[in-house]
Amino acid sequence: QVQKVELSIDEIDKGDYEHFMLKEIHDQPSSIEDTFRGRISMDHSKIFLGGILDVLPSLINARRIIILACGTSWHAGLVSEYLFEEYARVPVEVEYASEFRYRKPILYPDDVVIAISQSGETADTLAAIRMVREQSEATILGICNVAGSSISRETDAGVYTHAGIEIGVASTKAFTAQITVLTMMAFLLGHRKKKISDSDYVKLVNALTEIPGKMREILNHEGFIKDVANKYTNVTNSLYLGRGVLYPVALEGALKLKEISYIHAEGYPAAEMKHGPIALIDENMPVFVLAVKDDSYEKITSNIQEVKARNGKVVAIVTEGEKTLRNMADDVIEIPACHKSLSPLLAVVPLQIISYQIAVMRGCNVDQPRNLAKSVTVE
Amino acid sequence: QVQKVELSIDEIDKGDYEHFMLKEIHDQPSSIEDTFRGRISMDHSKIFLGGILDVLPSLINARRIIILACGTSWHAGLVSEYLFEEYARVPVEVEYASEFRYRKPILYPDDVVIAISQSGETADTLAAIRMVREQSEATILGICNVAGSSISRETDAGVYTHAGIEIGVASTKAFTAQITVLTMMAFLLGHRKKKISDSDYVKLVNALTEIPGKMREILNHEGFIKDVANKYTNVTNSLYLGRGVLYPVALEGALKLKEISYIHAEGYPAAEMKHGPIALIDENMPVFVLAVKDDSYEKITSNIQEVKARNGKVVAIVTEGEKTLRNMADDVIEIPACHKSLSPLLAVVPLQIISYQIAVMRGCNVDQPRNLAKSVTVE
Repeated sequence: QVQKVELSIDEIDKGDYEHFMLKEIHDQPSSIEDTFRGRISMDHSKIFLGGILDVLPSLINARRIIILACGTSWHAGLVSEYLFEEYARVPVEVEYASEFRYRKPILYPDDVVIAISQSGETADTLAAIRMVREQSEATILGICNVAGSSISRETDAGVYTHAGIEIGVASTKAFTAQITVLTMMAFLLGHRKKKISDSDYVKLVNALTEIPGKMREILNHEGFIKDVANKYTNVTNSLYLGRGVLYPVALEGALKLKEISYIHAEGYPAAEMKHGPIALIDENMPVFVLAVKDDSYEKITSNIQEVKARNGKVVAIVTEGEKTLRNMADDVIEIPACHKSLSPLLAVVPLQIISYQIAVMRGCNVDQPRNLAKSVTVE
Repeated sequence: QVQKVELSIDEIDKGDYEHFMLKEIHDQPSSIEDTFRGRISMDHSKIFLGGILDVLPSLINARRIIILACGTSWHAGLVSEYLFEEYARVPVEVEYASEFRYRKPILYPDDVVIAISQSGETADTLAAIRMVREQSEATILGICNVAGSSISRETDAGVYTHAGIEIGVASTKAFTAQITVLTMMAFLLGHRKKKISDSDYVKLVNALTEIPGKMREILNHEGFIKDVANKYTNVTNSLYLGRGVLYPVALEGALKLKEISYIHAEGYPAAEMKHGPIALIDENMPVFVLAVKDDSYEKITSNIQEVKARNGKVVAIVTEGEKTLRNMADDVIEIPACHKSLSPLLAVVPLQIISYQIAVMRGCNVDQPRNLAKSVTVE
């Protein structure tokens, strides 16, 4: 059966941008707004997610959420683990689909499984949900960007990300749209479960709707971020550190750099650094640290001191107006203040720009990096 | 209060070995036997773990096991996730202690928490179990190597690893002893829950008791492994790949190389390679692949082909007698055939030797690598 795909010409044209990836980075404020559209009430007091309305009772009664994904989608899943646990008070397991499907996982009927895939065709994720279907009664949801994709068809329910077509192989706007959907789900579920009061709910939804505007502020300072990136174009290795909800952003920042610049970058939860990776630190190993003002700010500041004590170079992503780290880090990139649970959506943007700029300056084929395919539809 | 520590002189003397780490790698067959002692019946039909006898009902009724650890102990926890799920049919979550304690985790009274720490003093792990204690009724077990340590005192019950004192900062024999204890726990629990038949139980216990002898065979071929290591002393980066129960061994192999040779090595579940890391592969990026004959052998063979197609160098850890990979990989290191769930205990040994040899040849201070402490007793 032939499916007709509705595309406007802008969606597959990179316009004034040199690469699709750069266009897609800039698309993010709008693609998040598109993902909100029709799903958040005008007064910000309600979230409607029509696609999961029928399965809300399963979500409310779930004793566990299992997230299955690969690559960047797996990172979005890790971000949501913090949100679902914090706001909906349900334990979350985030699994590599490829590992999950070859284990003998234990599934309960009151588990809810969420498969995340931009294309909706990721082979391991698709195979994993088929396995869940065969072995259990668990409810299966999908979060996909491509309407009518295999995963969206084979799940019980789901929510589409409205990121628009993503052409750059290194995912950017699909990632932030996935986090947006997962955040809406976590807030909605928390409210329905009465773990979030009505007034806190409005505050959280408000905070979420402010994200696209704040993202535009970051994109307005792209030139500054490019200047920082310029200093690190010749590195061969780097580390990315974050804590809490920003730990998965560290993983994602490292993956972007790997994918398009072929620099060996690795993400770590910052506290694990002392258990090994700190041995790598010397003047040739730049460390990108997500150090926004949140509950772990003091701890991450002390991690930065440890890196500096070993002559490491530190690029810190900080909250606007932050003073202390300005004297400690080699480079500081500010992002607007936002609700502590929403910082992944902002903090990832400078990391995307840095990876993009470094790759361009190294002469890499940004939109089609070597060895990689946009959708991994084979195992 | 002063505690008297009983130590024999051999325990703190490196004997004929150049470094404590090398001695401790060689200690492993005996330290695993010491960890068995008094815990496995002569006919291999029973496992006794006196330390957790009182909490067995909690373990049998647990709907979830949460493992808290850092660094190498976290890798041992990841190995056990596969064993507990496969044999005891209980879902396991393995958490970085540092991340878990700063989240707002959801704990149920029928959760069992297992803290793993060689020293029993790891600051984040200790703080995490204190948090669990305050917030829940969950049963807390400890797996420590140091008797009387804080974690062993603050847990409800536990099992000591009898690895003897470990002096090298990079953990080796404590890791394999932790896996040994966790394996015994998984088998015991599976048998008590009647998920393992009596006859399978004897087979599994038998297979486990054969491990020290097989480890000695690997150590007898140390010279060959050293020759392989020699070829890779000048690399700046490397990847380690594994699937299933060998994925955590890939992480551990990479961590060993990082810790003592300061080479940037990263572990990945092999199927994730296509989602990014494969972009890094070129002739300068050696890839260590755990490719023993088990359920994922075919898949991992195809991962090796992908690396070779991009001119990567492959060092494969394979099962004795394996032929196919001999023609595909650049170097092949054989380990004896063993039960598929026990391969981590064998496969890690050549990786430890490789890291050790590379570090020695690079002139690194193997027993006291830069920037690292043996026990991370501060956050």
